[in-house]
Amino acid sequence: MKPKAVVIYSGGMDSYTVLHFVLQKGYEVYPLSFNYGQRHDKELVVASYVCKTLNLAQQVVDITNINHLLKGSSLTDCDLDIPTGEYRLDNMKSTVVPNRNMIFLSLAVGYAVSIGASQVFYGAHAGDHSIYPDCRPEFVTAMNDVCAIANYEPVAVVSPFSHLSKSEILRVGLSMQLDYVHSWTCYNGREKACGGCGSCLERLAAFASQNMIDPLDYEVPSIGAS
Amino acid sequence: MKPKAVVIYSGGMDSYTVLHFVLQKGYEVYPLSFNYGQRHDKELVVASYVCKTLNLAQQVVDITNINHLLKGSSLTDCDLDIPTGEYRLDNMKSTVVPNRNMIFLSLAVGYAVSIGASQVFYGAHAGDHSIYPDCRPEFVTAMNDVCAIANYEPVAVVSPFSHLSKSEILRVGLSMQLDYVHSWTCYNGREKACGGCGSCLERLAAFASQNMIDPLDYEVPSIGAS
Repeated sequence: MKPKAVVIYSGGMDSYTVLHFVLQKGYEVYPLSFNYGQRHDKELVVASYVCKTLNLAQQVVDITNINHLLKGSSLTDCDLDIPTGEYRLDNMKSTVVPNRNMIFLSLAVGYAVSIGASQVFYGAHAGDHSIYPDCRPEFVTAMNDVCAIANYEPVAVVSPFSHLSKSEILRVGLSMQLDYVHSWTCYNGREKACGGCGSCLERLAAFASQNMIDPLDYEVPSIGAS
Repeated sequence: MKPKAVVIYSGGMDSYTVLHFVLQKGYEVYPLSFNYGQRHDKELVVASYVCKTLNLAQQVVDITNINHLLKGSSLTDCDLDIPTGEYRLDNMKSTVVPNRNMIFLSLAVGYAVSIGASQVFYGAHAGDHSIYPDCRPEFVTAMNDVCAIANYEPVAVVSPFSHLSKSEILRVGLSMQLDYVHSWTCYNGREKACGGCGSCLERLAAFASQNMIDPLDYEVPSIGAS
């Protein structure tokens, strides 16, 4: 019998790669996605499509109700502007959702306990470390210490790409023949990716580093597939 | 200006005592209550009444949506029977909600960060240690290690009564002149407390240890106020 693993799967590039990485490791994968009051649901639509094609029983949990507790992030508060420009601390700090990864991981660990999975995977990467404290290796280590003792059944929190840059994660995914048209990165939720937000710029830089054209459609005609 | 503190407040005896303990310490208190698909809302009704009389801005967050992730607890799953008899591991293990306190604390810490509170209080007590792993002092210590680094703003998780028994917590509360008619403990949610579930028995034992009659009404005429 395959061991079970919960994968926190947003629909973005990193978790799309983690999902396939864990599948290839031979786990029975239980993808877990959160609707937490994002400004748009493009990522979630993409995530559900991918799970359907892979025949995986995805859980999509609507935790929008907690959103009014977690004010002050431009990712959930429509009164704030999405930052444009490079993916750097000074630009991106307003996108920090208070305690987001601990909230997601604590729910994922509860789910893991209830289905008998001993591992929870999530897709932090090295480029996030300076911006999001809850993507750093020391956070993952500390979460593991808690999750080992919080329930009768210890659960390991695994962040397999936390030492890799976005470009290196993309390289891993490309070596697995992944088609990144089935991932969404842009902080805006329009028909095409904007190409101007920090997240798009980071994604485009990753593709450029691999001498690849991003298969996604962008609003700026000179970049991406269109 | 008073320092701000979030208090996880269920409406039970322990958190009722913690709430007043933190108020008396001079904090500006932000009570946080969860509707997580409990079998009944008696505790929450009592909690809201208390917050109203104390003029505290309580947040009640409905996280019922996460309930289908956390199967297998008799506190949330109406297909399972509530255990009766003594508050001991073999009787009470079915009341363990997977990862409950980590979920509650991670949400409370997110709330604390968003309002600028540096402390989150919750009411674990020594009698819970053998039953609920996430009430043990080592869990609180490990959570503190995570919460110190998970956000830009460190948040301390404080469990002021984790070294006290239920009886000792009651003694603290009685010394603060608290009226425990404004707390609800029974796992069943009928008009009067059942007097037979593990939680009622533990509460009644605490009152007996203080040579007090519990001011609550019980279904069993010979116990409690009625």
